[in-house]
Amino acid sequence: VRTEIELDAKQRKILYQTELFEVASIEWTDKNVATLHNHGWSQCHVLIESGSFENSLDLGFKKEIQQLEKGQTFSTPLGSWHKLRCLSAQGRTLHVYAPKISERNEASIFKTSALEAIGGDLRLDTPTNFEELKKILENIRKHSISTDSPYFMNQLFSGVLPQMLLAEDVISQTKTTMATFEASPALSVIEAEVIESLGAIIGWPKDMRDGVCVPGGSAANFMAIHCARQKLLPEIKKNGMNEVKLKIFASEEAHYSLKKACATLGLGTDALIAVPADDHGRMKVETLESLVIASINKGEVPVLVCATAGTTVLGAFDPIDTIAQICKTHGLWLHVDGAWGGPALFSDQARNLVQGIELADSVTFDAHKLFGANLTCSFFLTKHAGLLLEANDVSGAEYLFHSDDATIDRGRLSWQCGRKADALSFWAIWKSLGTSGLGEVVDQLIAIRDETLDWIKTQPRLALVSIPDFLNVCIRILPPQEKSNSHDWSRKVREVLRENNFAFVNFSSDESGSFLRLILAHPYLQFKHVKQILKWSLEVE
Amino acid sequence: VRTEIELDAKQRKILYQTELFEVASIEWTDKNVATLHNHGWSQCHVLIESGSFENSLDLGFKKEIQQLEKGQTFSTPLGSWHKLRCLSAQGRTLHVYAPKISERNEASIFKTSALEAIGGDLRLDTPTNFEELKKILENIRKHSISTDSPYFMNQLFSGVLPQMLLAEDVISQTKTTMATFEASPALSVIEAEVIESLGAIIGWPKDMRDGVCVPGGSAANFMAIHCARQKLLPEIKKNGMNEVKLKIFASEEAHYSLKKACATLGLGTDALIAVPADDHGRMKVETLESLVIASINKGEVPVLVCATAGTTVLGAFDPIDTIAQICKTHGLWLHVDGAWGGPALFSDQARNLVQGIELADSVTFDAHKLFGANLTCSFFLTKHAGLLLEANDVSGAEYLFHSDDATIDRGRLSWQCGRKADALSFWAIWKSLGTSGLGEVVDQLIAIRDETLDWIKTQPRLALVSIPDFLNVCIRILPPQEKSNSHDWSRKVREVLRENNFAFVNFSSDESGSFLRLILAHPYLQFKHVKQILKWSLEVE
Repeated sequence: VRTEIELDAKQRKILYQTELFEVASIEWTDKNVATLHNHGWSQCHVLIESGSFENSLDLGFKKEIQQLEKGQTFSTPLGSWHKLRCLSAQGRTLHVYAPKISERNEASIFKTSALEAIGGDLRLDTPTNFEELKKILENIRKHSISTDSPYFMNQLFSGVLPQMLLAEDVISQTKTTMATFEASPALSVIEAEVIESLGAIIGWPKDMRDGVCVPGGSAANFMAIHCARQKLLPEIKKNGMNEVKLKIFASEEAHYSLKKACATLGLGTDALIAVPADDHGRMKVETLESLVIASINKGEVPVLVCATAGTTVLGAFDPIDTIAQICKTHGLWLHVDGAWGGPALFSDQARNLVQGIELADSVTFDAHKLFGANLTCSFFLTKHAGLLLEANDVSGAEYLFHSDDATIDRGRLSWQCGRKADALSFWAIWKSLGTSGLGEVVDQLIAIRDETLDWIKTQPRLALVSIPDFLNVCIRILPPQEKSNSHDWSRKVREVLRENNFAFVNFSSDESGSFLRLILAHPYLQFKHVKQILKWSLEVE
Repeated sequence: VRTEIELDAKQRKILYQTELFEVASIEWTDKNVATLHNHGWSQCHVLIESGSFENSLDLGFKKEIQQLEKGQTFSTPLGSWHKLRCLSAQGRTLHVYAPKISERNEASIFKTSALEAIGGDLRLDTPTNFEELKKILENIRKHSISTDSPYFMNQLFSGVLPQMLLAEDVISQTKTTMATFEASPALSVIEAEVIESLGAIIGWPKDMRDGVCVPGGSAANFMAIHCARQKLLPEIKKNGMNEVKLKIFASEEAHYSLKKACATLGLGTDALIAVPADDHGRMKVETLESLVIASINKGEVPVLVCATAGTTVLGAFDPIDTIAQICKTHGLWLHVDGAWGGPALFSDQARNLVQGIELADSVTFDAHKLFGANLTCSFFLTKHAGLLLEANDVSGAEYLFHSDDATIDRGRLSWQCGRKADALSFWAIWKSLGTSGLGEVVDQLIAIRDETLDWIKTQPRLALVSIPDFLNVCIRILPPQEKSNSHDWSRKVREVLRENNFAFVNFSSDESGSFLRLILAHPYLQFKHVKQILKWSLEVE
């Protein structure tokens, strides 16, 4: 067994140290190791001047090891962690940090009141010089919520991946629009490749796969209703809606964007029929069928059923295969909202949660949630190739679309015109991890969840709200014995965690009162983080 | 007059040179100057070791000068140009380039065929190590269209601003959602500040200003129709559309997104009534009024008139004040689509183009076009404070929105849920240039346009399509004498410019044939660039 010996401060010689950059030379002896560390938002560039080294890189959901010899160089990607080890008896390395090494915020910021310090700087009016602008932007970063902390679990995303940051650089620096192929050839191919690959994972035949990148999961659900309406009643595109009452069915636990979509699309919020959910948060399918039949009997026109793969609160999965049968019987469009739970597609362990998804007419998939792409990186996927074009393309854009091949200009598939190359952010993560690696992301987090569930059993003051299907752990914190009212205790705990900058978790309520919702999604998450949050929760008085 | 003497190569001593970074020491003598240069996508960090220096920084649309003494440091922002001058008899500076200095693409890439070289690397399947991923992303950048070139004029945007790149770093690294204040306090305040400031520039009273960041100008036009419908017939939100025929009026030159919006919102594309435009591309307002009256007489329900401030092809501005009177007479919502021409608001010289805009009920403003923000940074602005909430907010999102104050969580104003902090990108540019500086952007480009128009008069083979209102210069290129058919000549010229990687301009057509559309928008644009494109155009055989 090899003993690791930390570097001594004396071995590190600073050649240049300024506010903006730092150049340092390090002399290594055998068994030296520089412990796993995080350069925050500074990039570390290293030249091996002599000796042999091993660099272990933790990219979030993925580790890589590089062997390095004299003359070789490497950079530590922004947002990653690494450990450098000297393999030879002696060695020397040169390190350039530019900008100068700066740790990420030492403590996480979860309090919104942190903002007060910079309020005045945010006003717009007079010109500001660039140095000042940099300082203010740095302050905005410092006073923003630490979503990169493993203790940030408030949203269905957490953490900042190095692959995403790298892709975002390319997106910003190539600033272009996804509307036409001629303006963005490589990025159009990349968007198509991601959509094609997602369609394959879902299990749709090659020639049926279609889709488009949309600004968020809400927009994808919107597009599902829009396409389903187009398929059933194509004349509405030209003539508009009439007195026919179209109806959409979704579980009462489904995302509120369906209701927003009904309002904007002109169906009206009454068009959305909420199907009751069971104690696990899953749609009661027997009730679905009776609601559909009742609607038909009233002379209404059911169009679409939305099965949720991963509800926002409990992370529940509606039984897609059973719902698919009902849709088939009544000729309804089946949409699967996989904004949160879509990644289960990639996992051997979780794939059963989305059994039957290949029967869906369309799927919502958000890569900016579990898979760590940048907001927003959402996909509307459908097996009705050509329907997006039929639903969205109009005349009057001859100034823009010069190609006769309608499939080449991706803007014609969308109700957007100019849009950012969001797909690249997920593409870079997928390219780095590979298809198998994306499955392992889910499996790793499920293992942490199972460890959490085992530990909860040992804690009398922690009560699971329901056995989780996925990566939402919903827990009621029971108050210390002397307190009688437990109804709002979990909500109180949530606020104490936040006000003390310990952790930022969300809460929800049921008839028994409030409970915490822990979301396991951070790329560097370990069980110890989850346990720590729960320990802090139990300490609240 | 001070003579500038360029640095001699001997004065520059490389201390470390690797593939990833470079450290150099420079000895200066009086009158030395390092000419304006561009570090491309590398950052240059400088320490003044001795002497006094002056650094001139060109940030695009803005120049800044810094005085620097011994011990001070500065960084050259990504995407900017700079010139360093020694003011003292002698001086020494230390330069760190990390990543190593790399020029932007030497030649601009405008051909889509460049993509073929990297096609295989874009496939998704097996994992790729980080070094390889970096190389592929670098290739994607290299094979993407050079939208940062001043010869890129194909879109209504061009160039990459340092302020935008800096803001995008903060957006990526703070990865958060604009849905709730608690998740993004600073960024929510910033979005509100931009919207408030835009409302003030438009001239709306303080307590009426409202708006929300939306994914593109198309989405803003969509929101306009959605809000106008909500105001006129609020029951549609709940009940859906019925047999009432709502009608929207816009010039035949208006953006095609209005038609897409009619299709998706359930009005149907027939709801859009195209008003003829005159030879300058401006709406014929006398025809507008007769079309509105005819529609009312048919029992239809006119809802909204869209006045375009800056059409896509000719850059024409509809007469807002006259249209406003017609809207007032008939009780119609006035929307101004200022996606392209909105910046005229800031300019003393161009403000008259949007005279009467304060009478509008809503405005579309794209900051990612002329003002150089990242795609997409679009704003839907309205003077009906509270209406966005009324039109978009629904129940069912209690898991997300915990505040009782409906104005604090910006997600409730939108049909989106999670969304990126796009507003920061424009905020950083506005903060840098100031309100007056944004006006100067427009004025500077108008001056280049006027120089161009004067030069065109001297060229017998260049024919203006119409006198431009704004920054679109539409020119027909007449073929060399021996060619008889001029109908498609300009289109041919456009393809030759592109295939030779000279320039990327768009074209359009009227009854006399095709013509080029030059868009003056690049932050570093000079008249010489425009003249060069036209000279190349005249050389095509």
